[in-house]
Amino acid sequence: MGNSLAISFNFKFINTIFVLEMINAGIIGGAGYTGLELVRLLLMHQKVKISVVTSRRYKGEKVSDVNPHLFPFIELDYEDVDTKEIADRSDIVFVAVPHGSAMDYVPELIERGAKVIDLSADYRLKKEEYERIYKREHKDKEERDAVYGLTELHPEVAEADLVANPGCYPTGAILAVAPLVKEKEVSPYRACGVVGQSPTMVKQVVFDSKSGISGAGVEPSETSHFPNLAENIIPYQITEHRHAAEMRMELHVKVSFTPHVIPSIRGILTTAHVFLDTRVTKTHDEIEEIYKQFYDGKRFIRLRNGMPSLSSVRGTNFCDIWLEVEKKSDRIVVISAIDNLVKGGSGQAIQNMNLMFGLEEGEGLWFPGLVP
Amino acid sequence: MGNSLAISFNFKFINTIFVLEMINAGIIGGAGYTGLELVRLLLMHQKVKISVVTSRRYKGEKVSDVNPHLFPFIELDYEDVDTKEIADRSDIVFVAVPHGSAMDYVPELIERGAKVIDLSADYRLKKEEYERIYKREHKDKEERDAVYGLTELHPEVAEADLVANPGCYPTGAILAVAPLVKEKEVSPYRACGVVGQSPTMVKQVVFDSKSGISGAGVEPSETSHFPNLAENIIPYQITEHRHAAEMRMELHVKVSFTPHVIPSIRGILTTAHVFLDTRVTKTHDEIEEIYKQFYDGKRFIRLRNGMPSLSSVRGTNFCDIWLEVEKKSDRIVVISAIDNLVKGGSGQAIQNMNLMFGLEEGEGLWFPGLVP
Amino acid sequence: MGNSLAISFNFKFINTIFVLEMINAGIIGGAGYTGLELVRLLLMHQKVKISVVTSRRYKGEKVSDVNPHLFPFIELDYEDVDTKEIADRSDIVFVAVPHGSAMDYVPELIERGAKVIDLSADYRLKKEEYERIYKREHKDKEERDAVYGLTELHPEVAEADLVANPGCYPTGAILAVAPLVKEKEVSPYRACGVVGQSPTMVKQVVFDSKSGISGAGVEPSETSHFPNLAENIIPYQITEHRHAAEMRMELHVKVSFTPHVIPSIRGILTTAHVFLDTRVTKTHDEIEEIYKQFYDGKRFIRLRNGMPSLSSVRGTNFCDIWLEVEKKSDRIVVISAIDNLVKGGSGQAIQNMNLMFGLEEGEGLWFPGLVP
Amino acid sequence: MGNSLAISFNFKFINTIFVLEMINAGIIGGAGYTGLELVRLLLMHQKVKISVVTSRRYKGEKVSDVNPHLFPFIELDYEDVDTKEIADRSDIVFVAVPHGSAMDYVPELIERGAKVIDLSADYRLKKEEYERIYKREHKDKEERDAVYGLTELHPEVAEADLVANPGCYPTGAILAVAPLVKEKEVSPYRACGVVGQSPTMVKQVVFDSKSGISGAGVEPSETSHFPNLAENIIPYQITEHRHAAEMRMELHVKVSFTPHVIPSIRGILTTAHVFLDTRVTKTHDEIEEIYKQFYDGKRFIRLRNGMPSLSSVRGTNFCDIWLEVEKKSDRIVVISAIDNLVKGGSGQAIQNMNLMFGLEEGEGLWFPGLVP
Repeated sequence: MGNSLAISFNFKFINTIFVLEMINAGIIGGAGYTGLELVRLLLMHQKVKISVVTSRRYKGEKVSDVNPHLFPFIELDYEDVDTKEIADRSDIVFVAVPHGSAMDYVPELIERGAKVIDLSADYRLKKEEYERIYKREHKDKEERDAVYGLTELHPEVAEADLVANPGCYPTGAILAVAPLVKEKEVSPYRACGVVGQSPTMVKQVVFDSKSGISGAGVEPSETSHFPNLAENIIPYQITEHRHAAEMRMELHVKVSFTPHVIPSIRGILTTAHVFLDTRVTKTHDEIEEIYKQFYDGKRFIRLRNGMPSLSSVRGTNFCDIWLEVEKKSDRIVVISAIDNLVKGGSGQAIQNMNLMFGLEEGEGLWFPGLVP
Repeated sequence: MGNSLAISFNFKFINTIFVLEMINAGIIGGAGYTGLELVRLLLMHQKVKISVVTSRRYKGEKVSDVNPHLFPFIELDYEDVDTKEIADRSDIVFVAVPHGSAMDYVPELIERGAKVIDLSADYRLKKEEYERIYKREHKDKEERDAVYGLTELHPEVAEADLVANPGCYPTGAILAVAPLVKEKEVSPYRACGVVGQSPTMVKQVVFDSKSGISGAGVEPSETSHFPNLAENIIPYQITEHRHAAEMRMELHVKVSFTPHVIPSIRGILTTAHVFLDTRVTKTHDEIEEIYKQFYDGKRFIRLRNGMPSLSSVRGTNFCDIWLEVEKKSDRIVVISAIDNLVKGGSGQAIQNMNLMFGLEEGEGLWFPGLVP
Repeated sequence: MGNSLAISFNFKFINTIFVLEMINAGIIGGAGYTGLELVRLLLMHQKVKISVVTSRRYKGEKVSDVNPHLFPFIELDYEDVDTKEIADRSDIVFVAVPHGSAMDYVPELIERGAKVIDLSADYRLKKEEYERIYKREHKDKEERDAVYGLTELHPEVAEADLVANPGCYPTGAILAVAPLVKEKEVSPYRACGVVGQSPTMVKQVVFDSKSGISGAGVEPSETSHFPNLAENIIPYQITEHRHAAEMRMELHVKVSFTPHVIPSIRGILTTAHVFLDTRVTKTHDEIEEIYKQFYDGKRFIRLRNGMPSLSSVRGTNFCDIWLEVEKKSDRIVVISAIDNLVKGGSGQAIQNMNLMFGLEEGEGLWFPGLVP
Repeated sequence: MGNSLAISFNFKFINTIFVLEMINAGIIGGAGYTGLELVRLLLMHQKVKISVVTSRRYKGEKVSDVNPHLFPFIELDYEDVDTKEIADRSDIVFVAVPHGSAMDYVPELIERGAKVIDLSADYRLKKEEYERIYKREHKDKEERDAVYGLTELHPEVAEADLVANPGCYPTGAILAVAPLVKEKEVSPYRACGVVGQSPTMVKQVVFDSKSGISGAGVEPSETSHFPNLAENIIPYQITEHRHAAEMRMELHVKVSFTPHVIPSIRGILTTAHVFLDTRVTKTHDEIEEIYKQFYDGKRFIRLRNGMPSLSSVRGTNFCDIWLEVEKKSDRIVVISAIDNLVKGGSGQAIQNMNLMFGLEEGEGLWFPGLVP
């Protein structure tokens, strides 16, 4: 239990010293699945006090009346207060509203000195790219250099005031292949001295992702209607899902992406079909070694020696990864499994918060998955 | 294969004689699960031609465009025509609209000479009882003596012009215990000459029913939202579900009823806890014999010697029944399994139609369940 | 967050003082769902150190290799050591083997001074009753007065050396109706001075329970075969499930019990049909008040004002209860929801352990359910 | 209803003439899902009489006792008779045993003049290829030129005595892309006069398939254990599934294949990521036109203008196909949906049988899917 004990002792040490210095965290949009998952996880975080949870729809109702599973853990009511007050009452604000709305809050929050983690898509891409992909005008006057909060790849979140939390699909997809496209050393071109070419051995990647329906949100829909989803699997936006833009931004390789919804509540399993430059011939062990080095010290990435499952990561911030090299072929298949609401959303946001406040990245997130 | 062959030869015989005399069947409300199941089953019925399918919402669209699984089996468009025309174009009309709306169509359909099977609750109870239970005024001027279409118990449907098709829960519940409450011979009171008492050995019945979600209809709702229903079971109207009135009307014993929705698309499994007068002591074999005699010749009732399952009846008009007598107790537990959309709705309606038109009751309904 | 903070401060206080006095907990049978749930929960318990986990089948393998979701939280290997050594290395031993096997370990564990919580059925009933119900000889020479560990009803577990942890069904069933059968004050007989009769207003109870399949264990079977259980609900042992004996032992009323397996991994929802003496006429508010008084201060019992769901208790030690009084009837329907592996097993065992070691009963168990 | 009526009249015509000439069909291996699906479907086929059903395990038991859903449709007992007798009693024999066993029956069946449809893998590949892929010796002395029974692509089954029924995955995968790789006209190479190159515009295909668990068979296993599969999706044999050999044999292009099991009983949805030679630029309409021409007159292929679903094909022999051309890319995504036990197995076998006996290919298979 080394690691876990390491943390819990760490807990106690910090507690005794800063016991009164709890982080005040505000949540804008606390009635959706993302907001509720932030509440669930922050309630178990020993350094955080939830300062405000907003919801226009449920204004004035107790959070634990609307969401009985949170009783008696939270005594707050849902509020509908202005951005200024939210900033004043919070050290950090999690923005958990749909894309297009987050940009209505972020500028003022930043100006008023609150740290911000935006779980929407509004600050993940450059404004111009955002407007092209999301087909809407970006209302923020400024081009803010938000840090893309894929924690393992962007330690600079520790210094950020504004973090753009990644999409659920990009989190699982990018983590699955990052070691292969980022490891400069493994480029065959360097080896054979080719100049001015892609510094990677990856030619293209096909991400075929399967997500639980909770990613579609708390509102009932045709897709979430039980008779439509049970005993079925539903592909959607099969050639033009907007999350592909984040994958391309981070990986700089040819990316094809197709998402599906499966009859499961939580979880995203991504099957990455990675095609290498045929001049590259590496064994399974060599590839695995690249992954081990790349993710060395990243406690939430678990390299498996067997098939990942959604249950092993259920309710947790882990990303489980497993890969197989196809014999006599240029294909590597990498499987990644995450909980879309935790590592794919609220959990990663808290992981980022931990770094932004000088805490160990695992605080409040260090527990095993709900199996079975 | 005796039975099935019996029918299929019967088919051919009838075909050669009345080959041109197809029954014209109209469906009012053809876009809900009940209406669509009528279409699915009638398309496999060799004596029926669907003459009209109505839907205000989809007026003008092809039925098989709105419901791709029906392509290319039906070429009709959804229509929104007046009751008169529906009656003129149909020998029989299935009314598959919500209770409270059916009574807008039935009177005129009857007056214009169409036979009618109403799948709503509007004609199952006496008007006065209906208004008390459904808390609404009954708009039909007349008290029509519709036949309650629980086929096995009401052979008089053969002579009926108006059949009130039973609710899904009452179908499974009533069939489970009818032999015990209807068999006069088994009354202990007769035996011991007690006068003026209930002519049955059953003191009370607790029906605890579990239904697939399709019973809640085609519209997405909180209950049918996958994250709410999956990994869950949802009791509702636990002391006052309106279907209890039909059970009491048919059984004349003390009935307690509590329904639940399970994470399944189709099917209703009813657990009937039957409490007998303690003066009754019967063995399992004696009770089973009562059932065998009572359901002798009823081809859609299958007395099991093992546990019924929803899969064995999936997509079919069967009602599977199994019972166990509790040792040293006054309780018999009877389990019944039906497909809520078939025997619990559209299938039984077609079974009734067959009798109303002098056909074998199994026509178009005689096939095994979809297992697995 | 009053309650939860209360606990966590309590944590820190105790930590600083007894920081070295961790409880050494051994687990006999650590490869089944019950044993694994003990591991999962104890890993989050700040006062417990797991000292030994046994498994004949996996002897010598790392617990986290066999169960990847536990990596890297536990570094132990599965062992197959004798009872003496287990006792020597543990302050408390959880026995998580099938009934019939537990009695092979308990006597020696007790003699060697270890506290024991047996999660099997071996010590729940008097030996004679046990042998009658379980149809096997009880190998323990002595009649040990184990405390029946339904924590809310048996605070005396605090002084016990041997606790017989209740069955999963009895836990949800007994908690659902205990206030009605135990509250002497509400007996109509006292009121009207009837002598020598049952001191309760309850005449009989029908427990119709629906359980997730994890209750059937980790071994694949016909019942747990996905095509058999999905889209289905499976009643079993419908008149003679052995858990009924525990319910009768605790409630002293006429109990009828029928269990079902539903297509869900975790959770038990129990529908209690409670029939009162007709001389009793109480309103919903009066009944609810009885429950409030009875469970006052019991933090894991949540009286709901809406329908309980398995998701609200998923992964937690809560028992959610909701009731409705049937109008003009003698029936009250009480619904209880628990997680069969937590409050119905390992969680309640830890709740008992907490009391046995002078800790707050919620330690290590105080977190909200996994919703959605 | 044109098509369906066409068939049913056709029925009656044939009936009146050859009413006594029923096809005698034997089934070797009638207790697995494939064999049981053959029974279910053949019972609804008006030209077939099941002559014998074998099972060593259930020898002597009534088929409808072991499989209650088939009561009272079949009166046969399971038998364990020698191959000679099976051949003597059958016009056609369906071999539904695991690969490696089928070759024990096929040679003698053929020699004795029975037509044979083998649903195992034993005769799908050339012997040498078979031995390489399945890593076992092929016991058949001869190299029999069995026809690969993918009906739409191999009309020559009509003349075959031995048909090797395709695997479930290859059926859905090959049908999804056949028009693109087979249509000579669309080859860019012909157009630009390049010689000696692949006569197709397809460079490579990644088949990412998702299957219901019934494909894994009737025996309980770790994978089919409900707590392991529910709320999960399980990839397996991700780089070396043997079915890839059939896809390559039929398509002659670079094929990458990765299968997954989803928490569904039936159905296979295949997502085909098709990469074209960049010299090809075709619009969605042009591609769709290629499909329409290619599958013109194939009644079981339904080109959709919306997303296919497993429910639309549930229980049927249809293959639903939908495609989308990725903008500014070389990728076309084609989605196909089939029922793995029908079009992916027993249904296609019967479709082949129909052609082998001069019947319309849809006989006994022409009904809509079970929706919802």
